[in-house]
Amino acid sequence: MNAGLTLAVDAMSGDHGAAVAVPAALDVLATTPDLRLIVVGRGEVVQPLVAGVDPSRCRVVEATEVVGMDERPQDAVRRKKNSSMRVAINLVKSGDAAACVSAGNTGALLATARFVLGMVPGIDRPAIVSAMPAAHGHTVMLDLGANPDCSADHLVQFAVMGSVIASDLHGVEKPRVGLLNIGEEDIKGTEELREAHRRLAGTPINYVGFVEGNLIFSGEVDVVVTDGFTGNVALKTMEGLARFISSVMREEFTASPLRKVGALAAAPALRGLKHRLDPSAYNGASMVGLAGVVIKSHGGADRKAFASAVRVAIVEARKGVPSQIGGLMASVAVAETHKSPASG
Amino acid sequence: MNAGLTLAVDAMSGDHGAAVAVPAALDVLATTPDLRLIVVGRGEVVQPLVAGVDPSRCRVVEATEVVGMDERPQDAVRRKKNSSMRVAINLVKSGDAAACVSAGNTGALLATARFVLGMVPGIDRPAIVSAMPAAHGHTVMLDLGANPDCSADHLVQFAVMGSVIASDLHGVEKPRVGLLNIGEEDIKGTEELREAHRRLAGTPINYVGFVEGNLIFSGEVDVVVTDGFTGNVALKTMEGLARFISSVMREEFTASPLRKVGALAAAPALRGLKHRLDPSAYNGASMVGLAGVVIKSHGGADRKAFASAVRVAIVEARKGVPSQIGGLMASVAVAETHKSPASG
Repeated sequence: MNAGLTLAVDAMSGDHGAAVAVPAALDVLATTPDLRLIVVGRGEVVQPLVAGVDPSRCRVVEATEVVGMDERPQDAVRRKKNSSMRVAINLVKSGDAAACVSAGNTGALLATARFVLGMVPGIDRPAIVSAMPAAHGHTVMLDLGANPDCSADHLVQFAVMGSVIASDLHGVEKPRVGLLNIGEEDIKGTEELREAHRRLAGTPINYVGFVEGNLIFSGEVDVVVTDGFTGNVALKTMEGLARFISSVMREEFTASPLRKVGALAAAPALRGLKHRLDPSAYNGASMVGLAGVVIKSHGGADRKAFASAVRVAIVEARKGVPSQIGGLMASVAVAETHKSPASG
Repeated sequence: MNAGLTLAVDAMSGDHGAAVAVPAALDVLATTPDLRLIVVGRGEVVQPLVAGVDPSRCRVVEATEVVGMDERPQDAVRRKKNSSMRVAINLVKSGDAAACVSAGNTGALLATARFVLGMVPGIDRPAIVSAMPAAHGHTVMLDLGANPDCSADHLVQFAVMGSVIASDLHGVEKPRVGLLNIGEEDIKGTEELREAHRRLAGTPINYVGFVEGNLIFSGEVDVVVTDGFTGNVALKTMEGLARFISSVMREEFTASPLRKVGALAAAPALRGLKHRLDPSAYNGASMVGLAGVVIKSHGGADRKAFASAVRVAIVEARKGVPSQIGGLMASVAVAETHKSPASG
């Protein structure tokens, strides 16, 4: 059905490096017939891990350097020209790969990808977007940390990018987009928020207005747009609360021998709960707005989680997310141009 | 042991009005020997609810008006001079009550309290503070929505107020205070955050540095300071996620007859979990920085939750939170003055 697809995997970055990235990518390769992999890293590390894999479907491209998890983004761009991250992104730029996946340093990945690939026309800055579990399935949220300070222009662009991700990755037909605020009234929030609110109402985006943080999970919206500071705080707060609730559950279910018996009886329900809230199923944040598909895996991702990120890359590459974003952004720009003489 | 304490209760505000506020306050009265109540509201509504209560411990003060939940703060201040909210705050101002509790409109309560009571010297704006459940017991967080835009001065003042609440309400000896940011490095965040970060390091506050959202729950800090926009988004996000997880649990535990049997066996653990995360135990946000104790109950609070808010008011009044804040703020100001010639 689908044309063959080649994916570049940065095999050296992240907390676990090649030991997780390579087996995870091979797991996806085994279940995706038309996929081909380019594994980027130091030959002596990655070659043994791909031994026995069909060479027509998986090849190694040598990269001698690795970007450290604490390395400054500008240093990675300037000095690490032969890093596994940089080489993987170069393969997207050259067209040898349709997308790349990395578990590396977020700032370095963003800066390198932006430097090498450039932006989709009409988009000023890349944003980090990911799906959150919600009552109706998923809510797409951005920006999760790339842009602490955002203008109204940026927020409008985020709404475009979030809409495309919700349609392309999650199959939502007319994604309902909300702008995160501390109240639903028009007068709430900063000037940037209020301007973006006014402008979004006049675009082809299915904009539903200001939403509060609880709506991320309620199923009332498909996309939540916010600046990278607020989005990152909300994301980390969710992660912290989920971890805290799960540790309290563990304590309560192991507090006595009788409780442990109860936990056994409740095991199917607890497994169901765990499955539905499984963070590894939500791994793979897209760096949207770039003129190429770049997926960031959590640095500490395990094999299953890294494989989720690889699958996100495949879907985005097949759907052509960057050109979809360009198309929707152009139609938003047209709508705003037509509107402004009358409204101004 | 403690001198007698009189509390004013706004009996008419909130989603449930007197039907919840009065019985809740009487519950606390029954278990707090030296407490006296002033129930503020329309006589024909509240008199029947206090019938039979010792009149030397509970009296009614008439207030003919009620501030609506959607009423604009400035309208409440200007036009509702005989509202239950305003009269309850007036009783704090006159010294007839040591504190007041209201489940009314947050904006109106803040504006009215600030107008009537004024601020603690050295504090520019009131902030909304509440405790969150955390690994070590509680984390105190502020501002939860009073001040969407904050300067470094405001953030330093919030750190002072959060420290006082953590010591006075939660018995923490040298509360560890963190400033919410999207990374722990000194270079992250806005200019206001970085300035507050530099200044807090030179104060008597036990400042531990920048913290990310997951640290709210981890037990590594006792106080998390942030602006009212970010704090409100984080709070609503927590509420939404907690509700979502609890609805997924309910679904998983009722998905089949066998699962329901499992839920019965797990009931003690599930009850323990519910008890430890019970939102009604966390009701009662303080409006700190005001020259008087004003406690805001959730508008939809039930009897148990409203009673929690009444108990918060009692502790803050007994500890003299406003004067504690004034004292710590003065010592912070002295430390900053002594430091600035050398550092400037």
